[in-house]
Amino acid sequence: MANQVNPPRGMRDFLPADKARREHALGVIRSVYRSHGFDEIETPVVEDWSRLHAGLGGDNEKLSFSILKRGIRQEAFDAAAAAGDPEQLADLGLRFDLTVPLTRFYASHRAELPPVFRSLQIAPVWRAERPQKGRYRQFVQADIDIIGEAGLLAEVELITATSQALAALGLQDCVIRVNDRRILFGLLEQCGFADEQHDRALIIIDKLDKIAAAGVVEELRELDAAAADSIAAVLQAIEPALEGDGIALSGDAMRSVLAAAGEGSGVAAGVDSLAELGAALAGGLPVGVELRFDPTLVRGMGYYTGTIFEVAHPGSGSSVGGGGRYDGMVGRFLGQDVPAVGFSIGFERVVDLIDLPTNSGPEAIALIADTDVGLADLAALKRELVARGHRVRIEARQKNLTRLLDRVRDEGFARFATVSAGVRDADALELRELS
Amino acid sequence: MANQVNPPRGMRDFLPADKARREHALGVIRSVYRSHGFDEIETPVVEDWSRLHAGLGGDNEKLSFSILKRGIRQEAFDAAAAAGDPEQLADLGLRFDLTVPLTRFYASHRAELPPVFRSLQIAPVWRAERPQKGRYRQFVQADIDIIGEAGLLAEVELITATSQALAALGLQDCVIRVNDRRILFGLLEQCGFADEQHDRALIIIDKLDKIAAAGVVEELRELDAAAADSIAAVLQAIEPALEGDGIALSGDAMRSVLAAAGEGSGVAAGVDSLAELGAALAGGLPVGVELRFDPTLVRGMGYYTGTIFEVAHPGSGSSVGGGGRYDGMVGRFLGQDVPAVGFSIGFERVVDLIDLPTNSGPEAIALIADTDVGLADLAALKRELVARGHRVRIEARQKNLTRLLDRVRDEGFARFATVSAGVRDADALELRELS
Repeated sequence: MANQVNPPRGMRDFLPADKARREHALGVIRSVYRSHGFDEIETPVVEDWSRLHAGLGGDNEKLSFSILKRGIRQEAFDAAAAAGDPEQLADLGLRFDLTVPLTRFYASHRAELPPVFRSLQIAPVWRAERPQKGRYRQFVQADIDIIGEAGLLAEVELITATSQALAALGLQDCVIRVNDRRILFGLLEQCGFADEQHDRALIIIDKLDKIAAAGVVEELRELDAAAADSIAAVLQAIEPALEGDGIALSGDAMRSVLAAAGEGSGVAAGVDSLAELGAALAGGLPVGVELRFDPTLVRGMGYYTGTIFEVAHPGSGSSVGGGGRYDGMVGRFLGQDVPAVGFSIGFERVVDLIDLPTNSGPEAIALIADTDVGLADLAALKRELVARGHRVRIEARQKNLTRLLDRVRDEGFARFATVSAGVRDADALELRELS
Repeated sequence: MANQVNPPRGMRDFLPADKARREHALGVIRSVYRSHGFDEIETPVVEDWSRLHAGLGGDNEKLSFSILKRGIRQEAFDAAAAAGDPEQLADLGLRFDLTVPLTRFYASHRAELPPVFRSLQIAPVWRAERPQKGRYRQFVQADIDIIGEAGLLAEVELITATSQALAALGLQDCVIRVNDRRILFGLLEQCGFADEQHDRALIIIDKLDKIAAAGVVEELRELDAAAADSIAAVLQAIEPALEGDGIALSGDAMRSVLAAAGEGSGVAAGVDSLAELGAALAGGLPVGVELRFDPTLVRGMGYYTGTIFEVAHPGSGSSVGGGGRYDGMVGRFLGQDVPAVGFSIGFERVVDLIDLPTNSGPEAIALIADTDVGLADLAALKRELVARGHRVRIEARQKNLTRLLDRVRDEGFARFATVSAGVRDADALELRELS
């Protein structure tokens, strides 16, 4: 066992410098979201197994970690083995996102929450994905959701708050791509896809980045060749507009791009809604943040019903955040429709993009003590410096003082003082800069 | 499914007011510990199953939640069923404490850490205990540990920092009971218990609170009747001294209490060490915090080797924190002895004992908007108030304004303003107190 001391596969330890950077970034996000009126909540990391496999999590359900029931009997073993299904032995699981727990939380506590509830969750989630660069099995999400607001005010508040949080972290040049599921479904309908093909068609269109328009059309042909050809024409009209500065969130710009498809009622409703959203956000986003219409934006989850959005940053190959409206989902627990919109920041990607100070500030002092300094004296000196507002670490003096000083400087300490036997008074210490 | 919306058994959701109280308390603890030179780290919530069942966690190992392997085959089922051991199907588990992960972390990262590493961990742990009042299956621990310091400086720093953290939370009147495992083992030896009986005898003595001296002696008699009678005499001498003001951490006071047992080398070493600790801490603890010698203090875990301590508070029936020296444990992973001492705050008990402000401060403003206020105007007003440093929540005006105002006041807002159509300028808002 002495040899295997790494964290479990795909999971990470955080050393002090990394942990400090992460906590600082989380503090910035938390503070901006609180200012914007969001209230932080917390749910257990564990949810009932059946809730994690109720069809709300899309592909993520298959990636969830399952927790073994306690007190399993022979018959349960046999039944699970006969079914070839070890999950029968599980009653709990680690959450794979923060949305499923939020809907459960809301259903449980609705009476104790305001009619429009602005939720903030900053917490880890787990997915048993094949580990690869930048993809982990435990990772933090920062989610804001507004439940109970049917109007665009919810989208406006989410997009404003998130773009300000990213700006406060120093993430300039974000582009927020926006679409509306009604436009996607409208286009599919107008092109001739049957209703029951829509979900499958969206999954194919979602691969546009990977397999390009030709690949998408080819796969769509397997659903309906004529409809796929219509989509091909629409994509051909859209693609040039997405290049360069992209498409502004204005009614005219959006309609002109979608002209090739004609305008059915679904598309019109989506375009009008996005135009109103664009107008309400005009001039309200931090400098450098751009809002762009992207009619090919799908986002993976099946539960979205209206506005969807995704944040891109030039420093990251994949999106640093995204979300959308999911009006039907909360109702599945409540038996009553409740509108909801959410925006999630992909914290692991964001934290890799930002520069943060690694030192503890000018108040951090290393006390380098000779070996014959009395314990009570040393304790008293430290206590006094802490009381004066310093962060203090005691270090035993070593032969190679330069090496010791280099190390504590690298560990974020700005100043040091040497302590000899008999010194009890903090004023007698000579504080020197570590440079 | 619509009916089962509670969190899993023994686990809790935290609503905004509770979450705010918890985060505030954690912030206080984190800040004090950082000042005292501790560096925060983080490990995954999940560890390898074999590590969680390596004998380091005492009874907690049996309470750990196990996570199913993925891709289990028929043969694995059959083998586990034949062995009657579902745990054979698990490869990971949720941590039951922060000490086992810390030792793994230290073994993995030692080369990147300072020679004396002062660790801070604030994080949840999981135990499948029978849920009862004040005992949960997911709960937060706040642990500080010093690894690599063999001298009492480590105990001095841990006890000073923890008592200051508790004082900063407003927990007055804490009593820190202190003992040394060498004293316990010394007493057992002097009374005639064989070495191999010591661990079992400590488990029995640990029940003193529950079954009193008579019960302890009766159970000890099953190990060795003569030795149990000797212990009875020692307990009789100790018990009156524990009443009232208790026993000071001075050499004279401790030796006088232990005189009935005679003084072997183990007891003497422990007493000398505690006397030095008491002298170093004299005058250094916050007002109201008392340090007391308790030779009957055992603490459950088998891995303690020297000083042990436990914090009692009159408001709590059980301890609010505790810890001790565990010099042998880290070495089990490293193949090389490394001294270590830890102090853990039982966060759930502490947070129940403290009073914290529930409102968001004077800067929190509720904007009560008429239904005909334009979306862009409302967004601009909110943005401007946030930019001025306010926390802002938008509320839709309701017929019963008094009820609405009562609610937002209860939710922590200090002021409100009503917004009518056409208002775009934050200076035109009339801010009024919510009282």
